Amino acid sequence: MTNWKEIDQKAKEWVREAGERIRDSFKSSLSIQFKSNPNDLVTNMDKDIEQFLIGKIQETYPGHKILGEEGYGDDVTSLDGVIWIIDPIDGTMNFVHQQRNFAISVGIYGDGIGYIGLIYDVVHNELYHAFKGEGAYMNEIQLPMLDKVKIEEAVIGINPVWVTENKRIDHTIIAPIVKKVRGARSYGSAALECAYVASGRLDAYLTMRLAPWDIAAGLILIEEVGGTASTLTGEKLNLLTKNSFFVGEKNLHEHMLKEYLNR
Amino acid sequence: MTNWKEIDQKAKEWVREAGERIRDSFKSSLSIQFKSNPNDLVTNMDKDIEQFLIGKIQETYPGHKILGEEGYGDDVTSLDGVIWIIDPIDGTMNFVHQQRNFAISVGIYGDGIGYIGLIYDVVHNELYHAFKGEGAYMNEIQLPMLDKVKIEEAVIGINPVWVTENKRIDHTIIAPIVKKVRGARSYGSAALECAYVASGRLDAYLTMRLAPWDIAAGLILIEEVGGTASTLTGEKLNLLTKNSFFVGEKNLHEHMLKEYLNR
Repeated sequence: MTNWKEIDQKAKEWVREAGERIRDSFKSSLSIQFKSNPNDLVTNMDKDIEQFLIGKIQETYPGHKILGEEGYGDDVTSLDGVIWIIDPIDGTMNFVHQQRNFAISVGIYGDGIGYIGLIYDVVHNELYHAFKGEGAYMNEIQLPMLDKVKIEEAVIGINPVWVTENKRIDHTIIAPIVKKVRGARSYGSAALECAYVASGRLDAYLTMRLAPWDIAAGLILIEEVGGTASTLTGEKLNLLTKNSFFVGEKNLHEHMLKEYLNR
Repeated sequence: MTNWKEIDQKAKEWVREAGERIRDSFKSSLSIQFKSNPNDLVTNMDKDIEQFLIGKIQETYPGHKILGEEGYGDDVTSLDGVIWIIDPIDGTMNFVHQQRNFAISVGIYGDGIGYIGLIYDVVHNELYHAFKGEGAYMNEIQLPMLDKVKIEEAVIGINPVWVTENKRIDHTIIAPIVKKVRGARSYGSAALECAYVASGRLDAYLTMRLAPWDIAAGLILIEEVGGTASTLTGEKLNLLTKNSFFVGEKNLHEHMLKEYLNR
């Protein structure tokens, strides 16, 4: 039988250790903080962190499967068994340009059910974590269930590019949402934006195309605070393919689907 | 003769002390971090911080003028003399919804010339500061002069709402910029977005209508790292009125004006 509590404890330990590696790389690279072209670093760091995590998982749990952005994991074609879904650095562009606003994202699933979600904002040392049925936390602080929010009082996450003409969605569906809400923000990391929804800093977040590793951890956090996640048209998300993505406080999510996205 | 070095030292001290007050209010208010309706708090805090700063300035420099968002300052109709331009909490909506991504902004001008710019990201304890002719800093780290950046490699700050139809600007001028750049972000605090441009985290930032206290400090930081600031059509900014606002790396700023904004 799978010892989820042990897995949770190990996963947190490894994610924090991975974050330490990233922070150390900032220190050892003189003024990397404002380096103008650190593309090599980010490539190496992405790979390094994924390999570090995969090494730990394979050594400790040889029977588990791994789905990771950098492709060092397994060729996962079903959700049977225990699967670790990993993004070593979610928000790569931010990592390169800003050395902040990125996160390590790890979601752990058993036969397709989300058990453990970890999103680690490395620079701010904020670990958002959730365990199925036991609530979501930021470090030691429990995140309360999301309160009902009206669209005109909502602050949402959306990239400005989706309000321009694009091949993924009719932007005239998106524009009225942006005009209706109280505020629109764009942070450039799906994992962090999920963590912000889970902690009430954003009331919803929507985007056009994400991979499983961008959302696997976030989904578990959102679930634990009573939020809703779906595609942009309200369908169930598939963790084996890319999806459009829409998470938010439950009532707001329902309202936005009905009055805007599926109108 | 005005002792700008002494003013600089006092201003930093007061701004840090004001930040301490805000952080203390978070601690003393149980789980304020995730409080859902802290509108009263923010109103009080905005006023409290402005009054605190004004008290210090008036006590120490009775001859100086003060222009502040909350209106406790002077009725400033010219830029003659020494003027402190203050936004006690820039990014009020973020303060309310997120308890982060806001800043204290203080710009100090002498006969219309910017001498001292301070933008304090209170939650992250990051003080961006500049003194005329002596460069710009984040805490102890000097910010390098901005490197030339091409538009297709730029990350810019722009609120998604300006890409929808709006009364301030023809959004069809803005959309092609958002489509051309590498990334678009929106943080909801003009002062922080200026600090991000000064530190190279954003390559440009544009918005439609800002008051003097939103930009007074940022302008001085941008100047010290060789960036350019203007209205959206390239005119000089006026510190006694509201303006549209466009700052960025010099070459990028010039390119965007010529090829997009003034096309």
